[in-house]
Amino acid sequence: MSVQQDNRFQAIISHAKEYGFVFPSSEIYDGLSAVYDYGPYGSELKKNIRDYWWKSMTQMHENIVGIDAAIFMHPTTWKASGHVDSFSDPMIDNKDSKKRYRVDHLIEAHADKLKEEGKEDLANSILKKLEELDAKGDLAGLKKLIDDNKIVCSISGTSNWTDIRQFNLMFKTEFGAVASDNPDDNIVYLRPETAQGIFVNFLNVQKTSRLKIPFGIAQTGKAFRNEIVARQFIFRMREFEQMEMQFFIRPGTQKEWYEYWKEERLKWHLSLGIPAEKYRYHNHTKLAHYADAALDIEYEFPIGFKEVEGIHSRTDFDLSQHQKYSGKKLTYFDNELNQHYIPYVIETSIGLDRMFLLILSHAYQEEKWVKEDGKEDSRVVLRIPAKIAPVKLAVLPLVKKDGLPEIARSIITECTPYFKCFYEEKDTIGKRYRRQDAVGTPFCVTVDHQTKEDGTVTIRYRDTMKQERIPVKEIKDKLLDLLIFSA
Amino acid sequence: MSVQQDNRFQAIISHAKEYGFVFPSSEIYDGLSAVYDYGPYGSELKKNIRDYWWKSMTQMHENIVGIDAAIFMHPTTWKASGHVDSFSDPMIDNKDSKKRYRVDHLIEAHADKLKEEGKEDLANSILKKLEELDAKGDLAGLKKLIDDNKIVCSISGTSNWTDIRQFNLMFKTEFGAVASDNPDDNIVYLRPETAQGIFVNFLNVQKTSRLKIPFGIAQTGKAFRNEIVARQFIFRMREFEQMEMQFFIRPGTQKEWYEYWKEERLKWHLSLGIPAEKYRYHNHTKLAHYADAALDIEYEFPIGFKEVEGIHSRTDFDLSQHQKYSGKKLTYFDNELNQHYIPYVIETSIGLDRMFLLILSHAYQEEKWVKEDGKEDSRVVLRIPAKIAPVKLAVLPLVKKDGLPEIARSIITECTPYFKCFYEEKDTIGKRYRRQDAVGTPFCVTVDHQTKEDGTVTIRYRDTMKQERIPVKEIKDKLLDLLIFSA
Repeated sequence: MSVQQDNRFQAIISHAKEYGFVFPSSEIYDGLSAVYDYGPYGSELKKNIRDYWWKSMTQMHENIVGIDAAIFMHPTTWKASGHVDSFSDPMIDNKDSKKRYRVDHLIEAHADKLKEEGKEDLANSILKKLEELDAKGDLAGLKKLIDDNKIVCSISGTSNWTDIRQFNLMFKTEFGAVASDNPDDNIVYLRPETAQGIFVNFLNVQKTSRLKIPFGIAQTGKAFRNEIVARQFIFRMREFEQMEMQFFIRPGTQKEWYEYWKEERLKWHLSLGIPAEKYRYHNHTKLAHYADAALDIEYEFPIGFKEVEGIHSRTDFDLSQHQKYSGKKLTYFDNELNQHYIPYVIETSIGLDRMFLLILSHAYQEEKWVKEDGKEDSRVVLRIPAKIAPVKLAVLPLVKKDGLPEIARSIITECTPYFKCFYEEKDTIGKRYRRQDAVGTPFCVTVDHQTKEDGTVTIRYRDTMKQERIPVKEIKDKLLDLLIFSA
Repeated sequence: MSVQQDNRFQAIISHAKEYGFVFPSSEIYDGLSAVYDYGPYGSELKKNIRDYWWKSMTQMHENIVGIDAAIFMHPTTWKASGHVDSFSDPMIDNKDSKKRYRVDHLIEAHADKLKEEGKEDLANSILKKLEELDAKGDLAGLKKLIDDNKIVCSISGTSNWTDIRQFNLMFKTEFGAVASDNPDDNIVYLRPETAQGIFVNFLNVQKTSRLKIPFGIAQTGKAFRNEIVARQFIFRMREFEQMEMQFFIRPGTQKEWYEYWKEERLKWHLSLGIPAEKYRYHNHTKLAHYADAALDIEYEFPIGFKEVEGIHSRTDFDLSQHQKYSGKKLTYFDNELNQHYIPYVIETSIGLDRMFLLILSHAYQEEKWVKEDGKEDSRVVLRIPAKIAPVKLAVLPLVKKDGLPEIARSIITECTPYFKCFYEEKDTIGKRYRRQDAVGTPFCVTVDHQTKEDGTVTIRYRDTMKQERIPVKEIKDKLLDLLIFSA
């Protein structure tokens, strides 16, 4: 990451805190690592992104319905899905510093250091070995690699390591309904993904909604992963929110639907007015055990191109596993083919918090220009797409007297049932515009003395800073149109 | 509960499952106790209730802002709030059956049995003793009460009991970032209420939003309680969703604001068109340690009058505790009084799942009537308030030919960006109306041959079953008006 990129990322994080978008969780207790809280503007933006996704996927698609499954699921779900056995990273602890490392990170950091010292060949041979051992899951071999290369802990400086063990990324807790000598009897996991809530409900949903293949089930909700190295602000958190859709199809049609959703989901991103050149597809070469094709939709964050959404062709893996573990038939009867089968699945999975970070990264602009009088001016503006902006309209009386606040109030009263408005009468109009720019309010309306004469106000557009006069009685409908149909 | 009430409650639960409102969680694995999933219609209804609350509280109140704090919070939060020390129930295990009981439930059940046997006096003296010992937290005394009365486990039939111990209702899990010999170092709780997320963010929110007292902070989100006896469908679950608002005020003004919010919140319920006689206030006589006044807003569910929302005057208890435990000043500077103080707080706290159950209980009606031809007719209808109904409009071509589906489709295309629509062309129109009644769709539009002649359709109102003809081009605006302004 270049210094410039890093500065921009830091500026966004600071701005997000200063203007009430994102706070470190429990900050008065010095925060909780890799967990964040959304403040007043942030909670509105996050909700608006979630609502826009939900509307796009369910309301706008006749053959996609939603569900809202609980975070707690029957523990066998995670045996069937493979998470109990293999959703883990090899970890190692330094006995002196008590610091815990992901083994691959520890070895990679050592290789990076060797490269800096000019020992390119040694570094590459270590990395090659790491890849081989990792693929085989050879924990003893990995330990030997660490020992042989005398890799030390960066805190204690010692090589006093524990053995390597697999560390499952699922959080677990205990239900207390049964007094058992075996604590395992009561273990319940916090779901590490929302997808399984869709699979276990597949039959209930299909039957009660009388859906015919192809159809989709969409869900938004929290998921939890006990990441050891969680970092980069809200990009990788221990508690995060997913927006997932599983699309159930005939076996054999997965290629065409994979292509369909790959394009459809990118269109969704572009519908928010974000430039196409900021996006790229990244095809997975190493596929997960459940997939026969997979790609990431990547966005160019200030920290580089990173995954924001995944499109996965999951075959019939999940439904087959749940059928096997539950003993319940999870087949679908296809009238046209006169045939029972377990449907194949295309998944679209997007991180809500990452999408939030994407919007901030896209929106945040520091602007400078020279005014007509030759003086410099500047602003920080969040160019948040109008339809997901936290506040849609700020109504500002030019002065706090002469009946202007009363007119402004009446505009607020008329518009508030339709979209979120904000009223402010303090400070100069210029300062008030800047504050609205900083929180991304797309439209400001200023009530001045002319309003009393001809019933018009000034509407000011955030992105262009252009102003025009429109009649008071047109404000509501004009905004409703802009909010539904513009990016 | 009378047989009739019980039948009604069971009918609602069955209907909720049959029509995709609520499923037992992970049902293919035989369910997870006291956890439920919301299906296609349920997830929309739940979202609409949440959105209506959010809009009422934040968008419609200039001095209330939202936040979205994480479920994971710094563990000291729960020491400060009192939950680590006292959010617990006395429990006892039967060593033979391994069944765990809440001590008060076990003793009350025994007293009930005695009453049935006509031993009224003995039962009452046991209950009186229970109350005394409970208030004192005298666990040994409670154990003696069980032993003296030879109370047995209903499963094993034995009195082979463990000692009584306090069982904390918070779920806990472990963060894995630090290798510690003391597992307590890594313990993190699942929040048992959303309120504390507001208190710990109080200063960050007040400063970044430049709010002046009185102001409120609202939040919706999941909370978790390890209930031993969780029951009554979605009324008491281990995982549930709260919609809470904390209103920060000047010390000394708590009585007037308590009265204000007590009335304001009841008005919110009535704004959904639910009859006032189904509600009542229940004042708490025994107050929680943080409160100087508290009441429940109760609704007459089929299982009797039960709490759906709480209004609590929480004094400065929470902010004072967090100030003490964090060492951070949580005072507010009041310009008008020229004074620093810790604000007092009025809380409004409503269970989203309970509100969902309330809406179903209100909406569910089995209707029978005699038609003009003398025959009986009947329907099951969900009279869900239109503005929170899962689907707003069903568009139904009378027949599957003659160009009627195309006209119906064009209505769907026009209306779908504004509200959720449903298209169906199968079965008789009567059957289709009944299905829409059963899921609570307030408006059906039928496209028939006259539509082709004069551009009108039949609009049918769910609640009255009345029909009238309106022009196709008026459908969208008519519904938008009805949805925003009617109950």
